[in-house]
Parts: sequence; C-alpha cells; structure tokens
Amino acid sequence: MQSFVLYNPTKIIFGTDTVKEIGPETAALGRKILLVFGKSSIKRNGIYEQVVASLAGAGLEIIDHGGVVSNPHLSHVRAGIDKARKNAVQAIVAVGGGSVIDSAKAISAGALVDHDVWQFFKGKKSIRKTLPLTCVLTLAAAGSEMNGGMVLTNEETRQKFGVGNRLLCPKVSILDPTLTFTVPPDYTAFGAVDAIAHILEFYFTTRDQSTPVQDRFMEGLVLTIMESCDRVLRDPLDYQGRADLMWSATLALNGWTAAGLGMVGFPMHMIEHSLSALYNIAHGAGLSIVMPAWMRCQARLRPAKFIQFGQRVFALSGNDEACAMEGIKRLEDWFISVKSPTTLSQAGIAAEDIPVIAENALALAKIWRLNEYNKDIIMEILAACC
Amino acid sequence: MQSFVLYNPTKIIFGTDTVKEIGPETAALGRKILLVFGKSSIKRNGIYEQVVASLAGAGLEIIDHGGVVSNPHLSHVRAGIDKARKNAVQAIVAVGGGSVIDSAKAISAGALVDHDVWQFFKGKKSIRKTLPLTCVLTLAAAGSEMNGGMVLTNEETRQKFGVGNRLLCPKVSILDPTLTFTVPPDYTAFGAVDAIAHILEFYFTTRDQSTPVQDRFMEGLVLTIMESCDRVLRDPLDYQGRADLMWSATLALNGWTAAGLGMVGFPMHMIEHSLSALYNIAHGAGLSIVMPAWMRCQARLRPAKFIQFGQRVFALSGNDEACAMEGIKRLEDWFISVKSPTTLSQAGIAAEDIPVIAENALALAKIWRLNEYNKDIIMEILAACC
Repeated sequence: MQSFVLYNPTKIIFGTDTVKEIGPETAALGRKILLVFGKSSIKRNGIYEQVVASLAGAGLEIIDHGGVVSNPHLSHVRAGIDKARKNAVQAIVAVGGGSVIDSAKAISAGALVDHDVWQFFKGKKSIRKTLPLTCVLTLAAAGSEMNGGMVLTNEETRQKFGVGNRLLCPKVSILDPTLTFTVPPDYTAFGAVDAIAHILEFYFTTRDQSTPVQDRFMEGLVLTIMESCDRVLRDPLDYQGRADLMWSATLALNGWTAAGLGMVGFPMHMIEHSLSALYNIAHGAGLSIVMPAWMRCQARLRPAKFIQFGQRVFALSGNDEACAMEGIKRLEDWFISVKSPTTLSQAGIAAEDIPVIAENALALAKIWRLNEYNKDIIMEILAACC
Repeated sequence: MQSFVLYNPTKIIFGTDTVKEIGPETAALGRKILLVFGKSSIKRNGIYEQVVASLAGAGLEIIDHGGVVSNPHLSHVRAGIDKARKNAVQAIVAVGGGSVIDSAKAISAGALVDHDVWQFFKGKKSIRKTLPLTCVLTLAAAGSEMNGGMVLTNEETRQKFGVGNRLLCPKVSILDPTLTFTVPPDYTAFGAVDAIAHILEFYFTTRDQSTPVQDRFMEGLVLTIMESCDRVLRDPLDYQGRADLMWSATLALNGWTAAGLGMVGFPMHMIEHSLSALYNIAHGAGLSIVMPAWMRCQARLRPAKFIQFGQRVFALSGNDEACAMEGIKRLEDWFISVKSPTTLSQAGIAAEDIPVIAENALALAKIWRLNEYNKDIIMEILAACC
C-alpha cells in the first residue's frame, strides 16, 4: 500500500424521501442560491418542484440556471458564473447527474475569480476558494456528488478537460434512489459502465501490487454494479437495485477505493473524452467502446491483475493470459447485454477518423501526464475498437 | 439497503514518516495542547520523542497526560479533564491505540461541561461540543482514530460503557504502519480479532438481507485482516502487512461498511465488555472467546448470512447449516492459530462466574437496547464459551 492523505467531508443523505432535506441543509450555507439543472426532465417528473418546495420552505431566494446538457458546455458555465456574480449568490444547488454537478462546481469556482474559468482546466490557474455546493443526485454514474472532480467541454476548441480539487467537494449530497426510477434503460446502462470504468482505471493503472483491501473493495463494487444494473433493467422500479447502483457509483470515485493505490491514471477516460468531445456520444457509451480494447492491450503488457480480475469477478479458474482475456471478454459481453456499444462503428464513428481522435486525445494525455501514451499507442487502442 | 446519513470528516494521513505532520496539523486547531498517552512503551521506542519534536517545532505548548491503561479508567480521564481545564488547553493530541484515543475523546468532551463525564456514558447527558482532537495511532485494532465512538471503564462500578457522537471524530489521524512494528505478537493478534469483531457485529446483526456492497466490502476486510495478521506474525517488520492490517482495522469501524445496514447491534461486545471489566483481560482476547459461541447460537436462528460467510470468506462449497458451522469453526481455528483464547478457562475465568458475568452484561444490554438479550440467553452464550 502506498502513502496517502484522505479527507472527504461531503455529507451524504441517502434514502427515500430525502429531497426535503435540501432546503434546511442549504440554508446553513447561504440564503441566495443559484439552482443549476439540466433539461426539461426534472420538470416533467416532479423533482424540480420537490426541490424548489424544500428550498423555498427554508426561506431561500432561488436564481434558476437550467439547461445543462450532457458533456456540459463551457459557455453555459460562463453564463452561470455571470448570473452568480450579478446576483451575488452565496451557494449553489445542483439537481441532476454528473454533467449538472460538474457545471455547478465550475460555477462555484469561477464565480470567485476575475479570470476565465477555463484557465483552471488548462492548468494555468489553481482553485483557491469556491462557493458552497449542495446536490440532489438524479443519475447513478459519475460520482461527482462525493468528490472534488469536474469535467467540462469547451465547444469552441472541442476539448473535454477535467480538474480535481478538494474545494470542489459538495458540502451535502442527497441520494434518493427513487429519483432514478425514470432514468431510461440506455442511460441506466451508460451510468453503470461509467462507474465500472472509474473503478477499473484505478484497479488496472496502479503499479502497487499489494493492495488487497482496495482490490477486494473494487471487485465487490464491479460485481454489485453489474448485478444491480441487470436488476433495474428488468424492473426500473426495483428500489434495492437502484439503491445498490447509486451507492456503488458514488463509491466508485469518492476516493475510498483509491486511497493507498499511489499514482493512478485515467487512460480510458483520456481516449473516451475525445470521442464525446468530437461526436457528442454519451460518456458511458464511449467508455464501453474504449474499455475492452484498452484492457486487451494492457493485459498483454501486465497480465497479473487481469488474471486476478477474471478469477475474482467472473469466478474463472485459470491462471494465465487466457484467463485474463476471458475476463475481458465477459465484461465486454456484459456491455453488449446491457446494450452499451463496444465498437466505434456502433456509435457511427468511422475508422478513418482514428488519427483525428488520437490527436485530440493526445492533448489530454499531456495535461494528465499519461506519458506512456503517444499517438501511435492511442491509435493502436482505437484500431482495436473497430 | 437502508437509508442513512454518512459524514466522516476525519482527515487521514497514512504512510511512513508521517508523524512529523502532527505538529503542523494540530497547530491549526490550538496552541496549548494536552498530550494523552499510555505507559512507557512510546518513550522506549522513540515515538514520544518524535511526536514532541513535531509539536514543539510547530510552537505548541504541551501539557503531558500519560499513564492511560488498556480498558482505560474513568479516574484517569477525570484527572485529564482537571488538567485540561486548569491549563485551558485548546486541543488534545492522543498518541496510542484505542484506549488512549478513547480517553482523549472523553477528556475532549468532559473538559467543556460542568457535570461529571460519566453522565455521557450513562446516557444522562448529551455531548454538544468537544475540544478538537488529533491522533497518532500506534496499534491496529479499535478504529477509534476515524470514528465518533469511545469506551471507558468505571473502576468503582466495574462498568465498561461506550458512547457515540459525531463530535468525537478526530480532526486528523496520523497512521504510520512502522509505528506498529514493535507491537508484540499477542497484541497484534488481539487487535486483528477486535477489528474482525467490529466487522462481524455489523455483518451478522443487520436485518437487511440486501446489502451487497457492504457485505462484499466486509468480507474483503475480514480476509485481508487474517492474511495481513498472519504476515506480520511471521515477520513483525513486514511493512505491507502492517499497513494492510492498520488500514483494515480503521475501515472496520469508521462507518463506511455500516452505511446502509440500518439498525445494528454490538452483542458480542456487550458480553465481552463484562469479561474485560471484571477480569481486565485484553479486549481482543475476550472477543475471540465470545465470538464463536455467539456465532453458533445465532447461526441456528438465522443461518443464511452465516452460510454466505462460510462460502465467501472460507471458500466453502456447501449451502446449508453445516457450511455455516464450518465457517465459524474456520474462524475459531484462525483465532487459535494466532494464539488468541477461545474459551473462558484459557483466560483463567471459571464457569461458576457465568451468572455474575451475565448480570454485568445485562446492564449494558439495557443501555445499548439489545432487547432480545435476557440473562438466560447471555448465560447460554457464555456456557458455550466453556
């Protein structure tokens, strides 16, 4: 196990009928709030009304900032920052999934500085303070509700970049699994794929070969995510399945599994970010395309962990490269079973575009210091996605 | 999964050479501190010197309060409270294992009230504020370094009682596995037993039968604790083994595994507290006596979880009561292998004392609201410890 510092002060309120806590919890942080949300779905399904009732009931003044899209846009964040400044808001409330929460995080940091918020993403400026943020989660996927990460797409430059800072951790996140009852099958599956990708980035990129606590925790989460996703695809109103999926997705990226792993990388996300930046495909869909290809390339270089994955997650009995490859195939088969794409062509992306995708990914590889990835290697992985 | 609120704001600094952080971390909380520690061992092995050097280097004024014993005494806590008040200390620093940290927690709460600190333990008063606490952990066992629990023994009344309150969570805990290199084999094993007991109290007392995330996390921890304890008993200087054991013991009782389990109880601790209150045996030693007996009694009433335990932790293939019983036997065999006692007689406790022990335990059963435990049931479990 490697040395680490762990500090995650996000308060989680989990369970049915917890949305009513958002008002009182937020009132302790500020009276005038910016309410960040996505498109019309939360108005259709009644979540918006519940949240506003709780906020208004706690005496808060609400400034709306709806319209966040998936693969959220820098321009919309900039507009939110303007609104936050003009209205001198004291706190931000996010109601949605990772895209909404990430937009709210970017606003919470950008509203307190003079420079453009994209400077944080380019690594030119550091975050030193943020407005307090509370969240009501509506999608089990990104894990942003309990971590200090955010990802944004600059539509002008077609770059999808991320930043991590402890100050971006929400103060409070409300996780009510019933709010995900109406998430359609495709986005339910994409969310599960995203959570699995978060776990496997850690699991396979750590260079520490002695992390039994973390390994078993991660293997258990992958198993639970697959099982619970299967349950809710059969019955979208299965509360236990929705609850297990929601909590697992949060744990996949809240720092608990990563503590002790030492340096890890996000190479699968690095490549996927180019797919969603260039083609605006769902993040989870991009990940299920990249993951098996990346895993097969890596398993040839470092088979041990992939063998363990096959043995422990898919109960395979082998102890060789065939076991590693069979484990990867089982995961790929599961992606297919939940109808998440596993090839570029299924997402309508032509093989001729590979050099352009690789070029775009390379920019992120440099920022994320994934030094072992040059254009050729990225192209090789992308070729294996065909 | 049941609804829950999770909020654990303890900052963990884990790894070699981290003791030097105690000064700067504590300086942010107060300038005049009470330094709580145990007997002479930390002076012999140099830990005391390292801690004082860091504290003094950060400009802190130190008031010593050494002499905490295992199964820590109320009288020593009362003396610490007097010292803290007289010197108007602003923060507490604990250097030791669970006994020291629990004493420091009791002082941190008791120093700020007019009434006697034991009122908190009798449930007569609630904790509303505490002095900030930082810790340097020297024993992998109790988990007190990352939770809001504390246990104290009233020597006059021979009662060993516990209290939980979020305000008791340490602000910062330093976990340097090398500090446990000198822990002797018996206390290493007792610590491992204690951590396993914490996990199994949750695992077996939850009434929720659908907690896959938590179950797998707990099963992984039990496996890791047994493996890492075996490693360090073979080689006390095995860093990875010490690190895995230390982190697992912290995770066993920091709220992460319990989130979502709903109501749980501590029946094995309830009975063990009487053993250590009446006979002053090591807490872990008492637990390895009580655990197999309690588990066998429970497995007859509710076999399902015990079967799962046998299957997943000991890779047993059965699916019936025999599998449950074999799993319990394997755990008992492991206790024997690490030389932790498994019968009352091994701890020098006579079977004739059982009614007295049960009477003492019953008082705690009432306070902890373990309503299904009457004197007969406790005596039956104790009889199975012979």
